[in-house]
Amino acid sequence: MKKIINDPEQVVDEMLTGMVMAHPEIVRVNGFNVLIRKESKKKDKVTLISGGGSGHEPAHGGFIGYGMLDAAVSGEVFTSPTPDQILEAIKAVDTGKGSLLIVKNYSGDVMNFEMASEMAEMDGIEIEQVIINDDVAVEDSTYTTGRRGIAGTIFVHKIAGAMAEKGASLSEVKRVAQKAINNLRSKGMALTSCTVPSVGKPTFEIAEDEMEVGLGIHGEPGVEKIKIKSAAEIAENLVDSIVEDLPFKSGDEVALLINGLGSTPLMELYILNKSVQDLCRKRGIKVYKTYVDEYMTSLEMAGASISMLKLDDELKELLDEPADTLVLKQGGKKDD
Amino acid sequence: MKKIINDPEQVVDEMLTGMVMAHPEIVRVNGFNVLIRKESKKKDKVTLISGGGSGHEPAHGGFIGYGMLDAAVSGEVFTSPTPDQILEAIKAVDTGKGSLLIVKNYSGDVMNFEMASEMAEMDGIEIEQVIINDDVAVEDSTYTTGRRGIAGTIFVHKIAGAMAEKGASLSEVKRVAQKAINNLRSKGMALTSCTVPSVGKPTFEIAEDEMEVGLGIHGEPGVEKIKIKSAAEIAENLVDSIVEDLPFKSGDEVALLINGLGSTPLMELYILNKSVQDLCRKRGIKVYKTYVDEYMTSLEMAGASISMLKLDDELKELLDEPADTLVLKQGGKKDD
Repeated sequence: MKKIINDPEQVVDEMLTGMVMAHPEIVRVNGFNVLIRKESKKKDKVTLISGGGSGHEPAHGGFIGYGMLDAAVSGEVFTSPTPDQILEAIKAVDTGKGSLLIVKNYSGDVMNFEMASEMAEMDGIEIEQVIINDDVAVEDSTYTTGRRGIAGTIFVHKIAGAMAEKGASLSEVKRVAQKAINNLRSKGMALTSCTVPSVGKPTFEIAEDEMEVGLGIHGEPGVEKIKIKSAAEIAENLVDSIVEDLPFKSGDEVALLINGLGSTPLMELYILNKSVQDLCRKRGIKVYKTYVDEYMTSLEMAGASISMLKLDDELKELLDEPADTLVLKQGGKKDD
Repeated sequence: MKKIINDPEQVVDEMLTGMVMAHPEIVRVNGFNVLIRKESKKKDKVTLISGGGSGHEPAHGGFIGYGMLDAAVSGEVFTSPTPDQILEAIKAVDTGKGSLLIVKNYSGDVMNFEMASEMAEMDGIEIEQVIINDDVAVEDSTYTTGRRGIAGTIFVHKIAGAMAEKGASLSEVKRVAQKAINNLRSKGMALTSCTVPSVGKPTFEIAEDEMEVGLGIHGEPGVEKIKIKSAAEIAENLVDSIVEDLPFKSGDEVALLINGLGSTPLMELYILNKSVQDLCRKRGIKVYKTYVDEYMTSLEMAGASISMLKLDDELKELLDEPADTLVLKQGGKKDD
């Protein structure tokens, strides 16, 4: 196993320690795998909590900060965080105005966030949840009933986070988060597997001339294993599935996310972006804003996913609001 | 070859097209592999130009913007840009106040930037150059006389860029760039090779239980091939070489860069960061600011480099000045 680690059982703890050592604007809750904004007790602000298994960095800790998340909770690698960890995240940032939990649709995550939310409500904290299911590749999967949540999640953090900073109520923040989810579709592909540190060998086998289409962010199987295609053909496969699912129509405006899964060079993500933009233009879909980078990875998997968010005036305005997180920084006047 | 590309001979052109499609704040000079700031004709500002072979993304295009570079010029993958391309970059952003060329020490780069600078001077543009040689691993290498320039380059972009935004003269901008270079040391290691698209096979062979220490960013050989070590041992190897070379002493303040070479998960970079910070503390070296991400890669190579910049009050102030580039965004008041 080729990894820069010490003890495979300690990777999450050491990662979180190394992360707060690098970024003093993020604080770890003592004894928990929970990261929070240093200044998170803003009065009159709904708080946003997200999380999931580790191994998807920079998600979700990299999105803590002004205009996005207040707390992120990490499970072991590709493993849901436990309810007590989630509860701690909720409590650590509580302002009294309620919390929105942003949960990707995996059975373990959904169950544990639900339990944590019941425990928080018993502590008198008002909770709402949204479940993200942006992956159009499969209807049910290894770890889900219904569609999986993947990289499009970042758009939900951004939209809901901007609304929360405006001082909106919990139901209003939930409303825009759900609107973003309803307008959001994604699909991914991979050229290689990844290796979970505590397992020590690749999650799946794939031949030197093959790619996997529609796989999940934990290496769970996709729709098909096929011969490697060109960037233009990959773009067509992914964009066609996404566009026809919502469907996105000529005249629609979208935000586009080209997300690297871990070991895909930026060079390849930009080449893929060119093909995707060409296809959108051909379909009459206007790309309002584009994000190209690693936002939600699967350890060192080679591959990419595409996410498209259909915009209306409200979503456009929220997308354009400032953000100040490790990964996403957008300028503008902050009401901090 | 597992890559998301179309034609291996067109990767640089398609990448640059895909990059400007995603980021309207960056413009490509028509017909050239040159990217520039959209608003680059600021009066009374020394311009900064850097570049080199492609395959090191986000370097250097990702550092174009307020407080860093005005232009970046790209050669083919791992190949120096030609003098006419460099000249075009210089001319495209010229303000009449002179240009500083920030060049990594590779024979081809040094020769071509020198030729371009002579051509620019004949066109009446005042030019100064600095040569970056931060890699302590080897004294001479495959492509260099003297030490190689690697990821520490980003600190030179930042320091010189901040000085240029203040309206400083070309000689003042050069002075702080050279001061940063004098105070800068780096060293890297890799777990895997990378594959140049037009070659189609890995640049070097490395066994499943081996790592290469002190290698360059083009896969050129390092100091030694050894059995894989733990993150703590890797940190010790790199930090010892760096610290003893300058030397960095107890009481020194430094900026620290933990740079991923392409396919190293953020998880591993943060684990490495923890070990590096522990070692600095033990040596009495104060880490003033830490950067952890992919800043200068070698396509999809797995591995990391560490860079340390010794700070004085002037360098600290320049490091803290705002920056607004694709990769590095720092807040603060901008005199734009």
